[in-house]
Parts: sequence; structure tokens; C-alpha cells
Amino acid sequence: MSNHFSYDRIVNFYETDAAQIVHFSNYLKYMEEAEVEFLNSVGLTESAQRTWRRTKIACSFFMPIKFNDVIRVELKVITAARKFIKYGFTLSVRNRVAAKAEYESVLVNLPEEVSGAKTEEFNYQFIEVLRGCENENSACR
Amino acid sequence: MSNHFSYDRIVNFYETDAAQIVHFSNYLKYMEEAEVEFLNSVGLTESAQRTWRRTKIACSFFMPIKFNDVIRVELKVITAARKFIKYGFTLSVRNRVAAKAEYESVLVNLPEEVSGAKTEEFNYQFIEVLRGCENENSACR
Amino acid sequence: MSNHFSYDRIVNFYETDAAQIVHFSNYLKYMEEAEVEFLNSVGLTESAQRTWRRTKIACSFFMPIKFNDVIRVELKVITAARKFIKYGFTLSVRNRVAAKAEYESVLVNLPEEVSGAKTEEFNYQFIEVLRGCENENSACR
Amino acid sequence: MSNHFSYDRIVNFYETDAAQIVHFSNYLKYMEEAEVEFLNSVGLTESAQRTWRRTKIACSFFMPIKFNDVIRVELKVITAARKFIKYGFTLSVRNRVAAKAEYESVLVNLPEEVSGAKTEEFNYQFIEVLRGCENENSACR
Repeated sequence: MSNHFSYDRIVNFYETDAAQIVHFSNYLKYMEEAEVEFLNSVGLTESAQRTWRRTKIACSFFMPIKFNDVIRVELKVITAARKFIKYGFTLSVRNRVAAKAEYESVLVNLPEEVSGAKTEEFNYQFIEVLRGCENENSACR
Repeated sequence: MSNHFSYDRIVNFYETDAAQIVHFSNYLKYMEEAEVEFLNSVGLTESAQRTWRRTKIACSFFMPIKFNDVIRVELKVITAARKFIKYGFTLSVRNRVAAKAEYESVLVNLPEEVSGAKTEEFNYQFIEVLRGCENENSACR
Repeated sequence: MSNHFSYDRIVNFYETDAAQIVHFSNYLKYMEEAEVEFLNSVGLTESAQRTWRRTKIACSFFMPIKFNDVIRVELKVITAARKFIKYGFTLSVRNRVAAKAEYESVLVNLPEEVSGAKTEEFNYQFIEVLRGCENENSACR
Repeated sequence: MSNHFSYDRIVNFYETDAAQIVHFSNYLKYMEEAEVEFLNSVGLTESAQRTWRRTKIACSFFMPIKFNDVIRVELKVITAARKFIKYGFTLSVRNRVAAKAEYESVLVNLPEEVSGAKTEEFNYQFIEVLRGCENENSACR
């Protein structure tokens, strides 16, 4: 048992580009999909009043991904702090690593002012759930 | 005079998301647009046989961007090595910085094998042009 | 039993726009996904040498679709002609129709000349499979 | 002088697909861009409280479009009714027609109920401006 959440999806034709591989911007979409699935799975579904915003991202690309490939996105909660969550991601195709990434998400209230995101402290229940996911032997999944 | 290349574009409605701001994956598209414009401007236009692939990216987000905002993307050549170019980007709206990023691009030949990208050494002319862009007082633009 | 092929998928956050609903261009992507799934299901998988191109599309939108909604795309082969397939689509959410559409796909060889698509006649086996799908009581699915 | 509004833009790399041409869903985005530019040009800028929604679309594709092509989108107001605007579009590259389309837009108030769009009658000033655009010799542009 581990704290890795795993999400599989097939590559759509429209996600490829003229180099006949997945455009690099779409890797971020795959990570967001996995994040949403993860949050749903631990009961932290987004509401119309709140949304997650990324503040920092780092990604290394190791291998191109093609149309109709099945991508496995493994998500790991690296840090569940009071004001942000830091995730780690590994994207692989047929057990070969295609990309590794990390990003930080903060929860913001909507609507917010143009002048900048108003970060919200998670309520205690959320922190507890996500902190549980930091541990290697958690029951997050 | 400087080695900054500058590219302006307006935010399209379809680039926003339900949080009413530009989706974070689109920042990478804006950077690629600036990179293409930059390469066109120095005469290094892509051909059907070659394409640029990103190998590493880091981005920090400071401020949301909205529909109809005019984004200025400033591009800087940080390193023009024999096998890759490292770019720095600053995205701003009305003189306020919205994001800062760096990424590395390698030139690959098409078609390539599924087993991995075949990086190509730039020919000497290209390196010369791009190395010129590394210098603060270059005539790159 | 019918000739309807059915495909379900959840709406991703990045597919919404600032009106907090799915952007209308994404409806076409959902249809293409269903088309690919359908063709895979009847054994007509795309190859690197061939691709499908749409020549005509008509779509009516009846209801907005939101983040996290589960869309059901129902696909029907209306015509399997020698040089094109005409599909009908119904998109619904929780049994309410969100959109209805039709489009025609032609198979083209790659690479093709810039001067225009070179349509290919389906081979006989393909026509037979797809003609089977035109009938209400076919075993297409 | 005519009632055609014209909008040019270059094709971005990420808008192509593995067939090395612009994905068909992106044609709708180009039309929306032209619509927004047109509405801005006649002073009918969208607000945070209102948005345009498409109710019906028809498009025919005549020629593939490639990376770095300059697309000209010609927009024409076909009908400016009390509750919707019907537009006609012609997309061309180097004076060859790539696609022709029509779609209808209705103005909706935000937020709206999930149960369906609440269409709004344009105020009189708007109708007047847009009706002017229906005429072949209007000064719309």
C-alpha cells in the first residue's frame, strides 16, 4: 500500500501536434485531470465558490507520447501545508517514464479581485485528510 | 538595446476556464508562440523535417490573466548550446508580471522513432545567430 | 440491440470557459473521441499512414455542460459510402440532450500534398463492417 | 465598402494535429476570435455579467490549413434579430477558401441556472448597430 494515486487515460487525436506527438502543454492537463480525480476520491470536490490555482510548476520530459497511447499518471502528495498542496507526478506509457513533474496548488475563493488571488487556509478536516496522504502507508488509496 | 524579444497578444475567450482566468496550461502556449516568432525573426524557421521539443520547464505564476487582457511575453536566450537552447520568459499584463518561466528546446528530426527523440546538433550558422542573442547588447532585436 | 455506439466521459476543468461551461469547440473533440472509440471497437484503427478528415459538420446546442458532468456521446453511422462516412451524434448529460450533430469523415493518406486532401476509397472489408453498422439491428455493438 | 469584417491571424504550432494540419475544432476558435474582434470594433464589448453562447453551427471544410499559415477570417452579420445574431464566416489562406461556416450567437446573463440559458433581448442601441452591419453598404467597417 502506498500514497500513490494512479490515473489512466488514452491520448486523444486532438492532443497531438504536427510533430505527431502530444503537445507539451497537454501534459499539464493530464496532471490536472489526475489531481481532480484524486481530490474527488478523497472527498474534496471543488465547489462553484472555490477553485485550485497553481503557483509553481516544474516538469522534465523524457519521451514523446503518441495518439492512442495509454498514459498512466501517478500522483503523490508531497506536502499538505496550511495554504497549499504540493504534488508530484510521474507520467508513463507502457511502464516507461515519459515525464516527471511537481506543482503547487492553492485554494482560492471565487469571485476574487483582479488584483491577485486570495488564498484560503484549508479547513482542518481537509488538512487532516491530505496529511494522511503524505504518509507512505496511508489509506488514501 | 537588449537581447529581449517581445511579443504581444490578446487573450482569447476559449483560453479562460471556469475560474474566469486563463488556464495555466495556456501559459506554455503563449511561450511557444513567442519562441516561434523569435525564431522566425532571426531566420530559423521550422521546416517540415524538423521540430523543436521541450525537455525541461519551470514556471511560477504570480497573477491571474483574464479574457481580453493583452499579454506581453518577453523572451531571452539564456543559453545557446550545441544541442539545446534555454529560454527565459516573463509574461506581463499592464506592466505587472503575471508569470516567469524557463524552458529548454532541442531540435529533432522528423520522423523519429518511438523509442526517443534524436537530438540534432545545430549547424554552425544557427549557433552563431543564437549565441549573438545571448549577449545583452546583441542586435537580435 | 441497435446501431448506436455509446461513449461516456467526464468533463475536465480545462474544457470550461469563463462562462463556467464547456466551450463550444470542445463538443467537436468529444465527438471525435467517440468516433475513435467506435472505429477501434469495429477494428478500423487509424494507422500512421492514414487519418480521418471532416468535410462538413452541423451542430445544435441545447443546454450548457459543466465541469465534472458526465457526458454520454451516442454515435450512429448514418451513411457508409465508398468515400466517406456520415455520423450522427447526440450528447447528453443525466439523460437530457445537450447537443445534436452530424459530420462527414473521409479517409486520407499521409503525407498528402498541400494542394488538397487525396481521398481514398475504403477497402471492401471496411465498407462491409460499416454498412453493417447502418442497420438498426446490426451487431456493431 | 461592404459589411465584411476581416481578421487575420497566424496558425500556432499547438493548433495542428498528428495529420500535420489544423485540428477541425480550432476553426471554431478562429471564428470566435473574429467575432470578439468584430464586437469590440463596433463597441459591443463583453462584460463580466454577460456572455455570448452559440446555439447552432454549420461548417464545410475545403482545404487543410498548416502551421504558420496566415488565416484570413471574413465575418458577415447575416441577421441581427432581437434575440440572436447570425454570422457567416469565410476562412481563407493565400486567397484560397479553406472553410465556410455560419453560426448563431445569443447573449446570456451570468450566472445562469443550470437548467438552461436565459436569453436576453439586446438593448435597442445594440440592435441598431448590428442591423447597420446587415447592409451591404454599411459603415461597420
